[in-house]
Amino acid sequence: MSLNWNRGFTIDFNLATGLSGAVESTKRRASNMKGMYCDSKAELELIENGDPLMYEFHEIGAPEDSGDVAAGTSIVYPGKVGDEYYMTAGHFHTILATAEVYYCLSGQGYMLVENKDGDTEAYELNAGKMVYVPKGYAHRSINTGNVPLVTFFAFRADAGHDYGTIKQRGFKKLIVDKSGTPTIVDNPRY
Amino acid sequence: MSLNWNRGFTIDFNLATGLSGAVESTKRRASNMKGMYCDSKAELELIENGDPLMYEFHEIGAPEDSGDVAAGTSIVYPGKVGDEYYMTAGHFHTILATAEVYYCLSGQGYMLVENKDGDTEAYELNAGKMVYVPKGYAHRSINTGNVPLVTFFAFRADAGHDYGTIKQRGFKKLIVDKSGTPTIVDNPRY
Repeated sequence: MSLNWNRGFTIDFNLATGLSGAVESTKRRASNMKGMYCDSKAELELIENGDPLMYEFHEIGAPEDSGDVAAGTSIVYPGKVGDEYYMTAGHFHTILATAEVYYCLSGQGYMLVENKDGDTEAYELNAGKMVYVPKGYAHRSINTGNVPLVTFFAFRADAGHDYGTIKQRGFKKLIVDKSGTPTIVDNPRY
Repeated sequence: MSLNWNRGFTIDFNLATGLSGAVESTKRRASNMKGMYCDSKAELELIENGDPLMYEFHEIGAPEDSGDVAAGTSIVYPGKVGDEYYMTAGHFHTILATAEVYYCLSGQGYMLVENKDGDTEAYELNAGKMVYVPKGYAHRSINTGNVPLVTFFAFRADAGHDYGTIKQRGFKKLIVDKSGTPTIVDNPRY
């Protein structure tokens, strides 16, 4: 599918599933997330037993120009690695001072945000809620429910992704299942 | 409601109605749109007979910074002025080379776009469709259905709104009801 960024276009993202019939999604399985969950044993077991799809997203390739807008959908599937809920890898923007909005279409969970000074917050997500991820904050979405967590996102198209910082140190907080209740705890490895 | 643009926040926009319980919408009645429809007689009659609400939107006041994102919802109600469907006023961005995305949550209609050279296109909107409004294009949404046309929008927060150009000359094209079928026609006043 050819997207004409100069004259405009339409593209579908199914409101229920978040998936587009027009473009391929980027898929992240357990093996792509290796080392990001605390429970390495549970992680390895998952990889060896079917390597489940943890999340996928539509990155439709906007020109990296400050006047363009990158937008698409993100779908985090329900599940856990040990007591940690399925989550996205999370990232800073390369141009740090660029914000992002996420509008939740279905499911429930959290948007975990954290800046380079360690200021952190967990914003609750459910259908109809928009989260504003402010300039300078890394962000990760986490599905604490039983159905896919689907969000529509938009940010300045030249912002870029810095996944490395989070991959190296993780987030300060984790969201884990404590007797059936999603609970925000300190990350022991941070 | 206080929105913390520096640390982030959540805000609700009802998926079905587009309305937020947290903030007031900006409302545009027939009288606010005076002079924008071709049929002046039908327009005047509407204003004198109840001055109906044609559309409303949530502009939640992002800082006018190139790293921030302005986002919210727009709701165009069903109806006609003569044979012209209810529509938004339409605008260019003050910083012309800034794009905008609209993700349609419900209803049906069109996003009419037009640049300063007169290049124009009408993109169809229905639930689950995203329209990319490219840099340099004025845009107006038009409800051709029987239920509210609800969209979620996002753009660079310093883009600004230039309503004056469109108010003065209109769009090159109109979308009118021809025997029950939405039809794109030339604007006789352009």
